[in-house]
Formats: sequence, structure tokens, C-alpha cells
Amino acid sequence: MKNRLIKLVSVPAGKPKVTDFSMEQEQLAPIVDGEILLKTLYISVDPYLRAKMSGGHQPPLQAGDIMYSRAAAEIIESQHTGFQKGDYVLGFLEWKDYLITDGAGLTKIDKNAPSLSAYLGVLGSTGLSAYFALRDIGKPKAGETMVVSGAAGAVDTIAGQIGTLMGCRVIGIVGSEEKASFVKDDLGFDYAINYRTANVAEEISTICPDGVNVYFDNVGGIISDGVITNMNDYGRVVVCGSIASYNDTKVDFGPRLLPLIVFKKLLVQGFLIADYKYEFAEGITKLQGWLAEGKLHHAETVIEGLESLPEAFVGLFEGKNEGKMVVKAI
Amino acid sequence: MKNRLIKLVSVPAGKPKVTDFSMEQEQLAPIVDGEILLKTLYISVDPYLRAKMSGGHQPPLQAGDIMYSRAAAEIIESQHTGFQKGDYVLGFLEWKDYLITDGAGLTKIDKNAPSLSAYLGVLGSTGLSAYFALRDIGKPKAGETMVVSGAAGAVDTIAGQIGTLMGCRVIGIVGSEEKASFVKDDLGFDYAINYRTANVAEEISTICPDGVNVYFDNVGGIISDGVITNMNDYGRVVVCGSIASYNDTKVDFGPRLLPLIVFKKLLVQGFLIADYKYEFAEGITKLQGWLAEGKLHHAETVIEGLESLPEAFVGLFEGKNEGKMVVKAI
Repeated sequence: MKNRLIKLVSVPAGKPKVTDFSMEQEQLAPIVDGEILLKTLYISVDPYLRAKMSGGHQPPLQAGDIMYSRAAAEIIESQHTGFQKGDYVLGFLEWKDYLITDGAGLTKIDKNAPSLSAYLGVLGSTGLSAYFALRDIGKPKAGETMVVSGAAGAVDTIAGQIGTLMGCRVIGIVGSEEKASFVKDDLGFDYAINYRTANVAEEISTICPDGVNVYFDNVGGIISDGVITNMNDYGRVVVCGSIASYNDTKVDFGPRLLPLIVFKKLLVQGFLIADYKYEFAEGITKLQGWLAEGKLHHAETVIEGLESLPEAFVGLFEGKNEGKMVVKAI
Repeated sequence: MKNRLIKLVSVPAGKPKVTDFSMEQEQLAPIVDGEILLKTLYISVDPYLRAKMSGGHQPPLQAGDIMYSRAAAEIIESQHTGFQKGDYVLGFLEWKDYLITDGAGLTKIDKNAPSLSAYLGVLGSTGLSAYFALRDIGKPKAGETMVVSGAAGAVDTIAGQIGTLMGCRVIGIVGSEEKASFVKDDLGFDYAINYRTANVAEEISTICPDGVNVYFDNVGGIISDGVITNMNDYGRVVVCGSIASYNDTKVDFGPRLLPLIVFKKLLVQGFLIADYKYEFAEGITKLQGWLAEGKLHHAETVIEGLESLPEAFVGLFEGKNEGKMVVKAI
């Protein structure tokens, strides 16, 4: 049986290109006792994968490696007592049409769930990152002001909405007028700033005369400079990602943060969702509750076909997605 | 009665100079009912006063203001029922030989204490800053590696010794060979790096192959760049001060921190001792205990004469002090 797969052929120099990837074929052997055969359904496409390519996120992805990320799959054949044909599972899976595994690291999911891809988004690392990073670092309180830097991005769409649920005034920074409308009209943010046409520092200063209490950041770079300079005393900066730096080929310089951190008594903390694996159940229950009550909008950009994975990945750095970027394997 | 006082005559442009200050005289009226007359004994001289001059530390010190800081004084006359002649008090006091006050904000101290100036140092904001900043932000654990950036400075001498008491390996960064010997021989630090002759990043990388767990920072600038790049995952950076930036006349640029913060899951937090005023008693008890057991060495540089205050202050930015800088009014 022939099987398609996506490899990283070269570590990107700067911004990734589709030619940094190749699609190859392999021969799939019949499964043996203790194995299962999976058909990939949805694959999560995330900025942190770029950080893995330059070693910032561990373990690294190197030239020649088969790409992998969180994915949902259906079991189409099983010789494993723990899994049955027809079961749906989640795991870190290689970017392939089909996979043979011994089931290690897989989690079963409800096959009747209204949206399977939600397990890669609002009910997956995306939503859980927003939930736990705000619970433990951002700590938004009613009446506070929260800024979300990559507001139309996957984690950020959820983080901003949780901010609203907590009673914060939420300002989203986006890269287009279309996304500005999206975060205001679809997600209920109070303001949107288009960083391509506005001066972020000036806009934030105008909109937030009392300063920013919570900054949920997935972007970094000059956008974060503009926000952090406007933090209020005792503000919290959740550093969930730093996409503006992932394609850097040399160390990028910016205004020094340490004087601001001490003068404003800021808390600036990096977040990794893997640290919360023993608490996922709590987070999923919370997020499912908000979804069921209609208080949380799950936004996603779905691109079809395994062969589209490189294009979807490159698109993350061109602002192509609104909400979670997923590829549906067809 | 004639009384001398020290004024800030001009906000320093860059590094402070003694000519930014003036000594003036005022006429002191007799005290009236409800007032006390203080004679200044010791005055605390601290880097944060520079930050007040540029507005980074609030409230600001402006041209024409009489300088003030923590000080110890003796009551030489009282018409206040709460204070008696001969009492010793602590407070934020103007830089004057004598002061008339209504007693607001003053704390009585034991006049038989072995060292009165210790109340401005190890038992004052200095020691308390080290204690609380490590208790709540740095959280040093036995077996960890801690770096102290201004190791011969007031707060840092205590912070490093607390690190040793907690079982950490402690590395101090200093500006002279004399201070290197001081922190190793007198304070018991494990290593000292002279930033004037060594490459801090390379030295830390060599001495700490497993990375730095706790960074206690009062310096900032390129020294902090060299340490933070060597932080281990989940490292904690206590930002207690940023003396390298206090004299900046324009925004200083450095390598961006946010990518490091997210990749290493760092906690970077600014600290202000005033936030702990309701817990001072606990901190003083702890520090007194260590002093009594001989586990904590109280280092100070004492300069004599109210007229020496500008020189003592300027000296902070020239590395003139080992431990706490105080002026003894004679």
C-alpha cells in the first residue's frame, strides 16, 4: 500500500517556503499483532513548528525529518486490544495519509463530537494554552484591560474571548481590516488595531489611558514593544509565542525591557502547554462548558489535502488564517 | 538655628555629577506642640534615587526638590506624646542635619542595637528586598545555580548570601578584582566574574554548563544579556533594579528577551520593596536570626558628613561601594 508523507527537506533560512518541504511516498506494510492502522483526518498547523526548526522549541525538527504535529485520526484496522476499528484518536502524528503505530501516546476522542477539528483547536492545545496561561499568568480581572497581540490567531482568538468572559475590556492587534472586523464582530473584542496602518504604541496609549493590565502575546517584536511600553503597574505579560522572531536569522534587537519590568513591577512569563498535561481535563471541561453555553466562538481556517500542509504552514507567517489553522486530510 | 540641607538643582543628564546638587542653609524655627526635632544620624544612599530623577521610580525627584531617602535619626527634642528625647527613629527623611516633623511615618528602633546603620542595610529595605524578592520570585532551591549581577552592591551582597544559605551555588558579577575577592572571601560566593575583563556570557556558559536557575538582577544592560542567554528552562529572573539604564538619555536597545522567555519558560518579574510593608516584621526576624547565627555578613561603605551625600550618590555609579552605601551625619 502506497502512502504519502511530508518531509522537511531544508531548515528555512528566514521565512519558510513551500520548497523547504517535499512530499514523498513510502510503502506501508500490513500491520502485525499489537499495531493499529490510522487514517489521518485533521492535522494541526502551528507557528511553534517553525521554532522547532531553529531549535528554540524542543525537540528540534531537522532537515530530512518527517513533519509531525497534533492530529486527529480514525482507526481503520486494529490488531491491538486497546483500540477498535472506527475509534477516533488524537496524538502527535507524522504528516502522512496513513500511519501504523502501537498506540503509544494516543488518546481516544468522542467520534460523535460536533466538530472533530475542535480537538485540535478550542478543546486542544490551542484553547488549553489560552485557558491555563490566563489562569496562572495573565489572571485577568473584571474591569481590567487586556491586549492580545496576534488577535486573529488560534490561541489568541480564545484568549481574547476568555478575557471578555472575565469582564475585561479586550483590544486585539491584527494585520488587516478584515481581521479587525472578525475579532470585533465575530469574537466580541472591544477594539481592534491594524498594526499595518496604525502606530501600535500610540493607539494603545490613546485607547488605554489607564494602561494595559494583561498582555497576551504570541507575536513579540515591535508590536510587543508598543504594548509593553503602555503596561500599567503590576501588569502581566503572558509570553505564549513570539512569531515575529521565529524567522530571524540573527539576533534581533529591541528597546530593553528590564527597566520597564522593574519600574512597572511587571510579571513577564513564558508558557508551555505541555507543562499542564495533568490538568487538561479541567481545562477541557471549562472550555466545553463555555462552548455549550454559546459564550465561546471556535474559529478555524480549514485547508484540504495532505499535500496542502506546506502551503498552510507557510500561510501562518503571511496571516492567512483566522483562528486555528488545520488541514483536513481527504 | 541654622540647618544645612541638600537639594537636587538639576536632573542629571546621563551620569549624575556632584554639581547636580547644592548644599543650602535654612533657618530652623523652635518646635511647637505635637512636633519633634530630629538629628540625622545615618542616611541611606541608593541607586533607585537616580530612577526617581528620571521618573522611572515614583514619585519623581525634580530640580529644586530637597533630596530624601531612608534615614536613621535621634530625637533631640520632643513636644509629641508618642516620642521621647533620646529615641531613635527610622523614616524617609529629607537630607538635612536636623528635621522638624510631626512623627508621621517614623518607626522607633532599638537604640542599643549593635549597628544602627544596619537598619538601613541588612535589616532595612536592602536586606528585606533581597529576602522577599527571593522568597516570592527567585525561589532558590538547594543544588541550583544563582547569579547576582551587581554582586558587591547593597541588596546583592545579601541576596547572594541568602542563595548560599538556601544551598545554591552562587556566582557574583563584579567590576574589579578587589570586589571579586570581597564577594568570594568575605561573603562566601562560589565564583566571581569581573565584567570589566571577562566576557560575561562566555564565563557563565563555562561555569554553569547546566544553566542558571535564579538570576538576581540590579544591573541590566549587557551584563544581563550575558546572564539571561544562559538561563536554564524555568529560570527565574528577579528584576530588583536596572542601574545600567538609570543614566540613559535615550532608549537603549538590546537583544530581544521575549523569544528567550517563551523558549526557556522563564519568569521575569519586577520587584518593589514597598509592596511588602505589611510583612517587614517577618523579614526582619529572619534576617536578624541569620545575623545572630553569624550566617550573614553585613557589608557597608560608610562616608562621613552630610556634605558628602552628593559624592556618595555619584559614587554608586562608579562602583565606589562595597555593600550598602550610607552617609553618617556628624
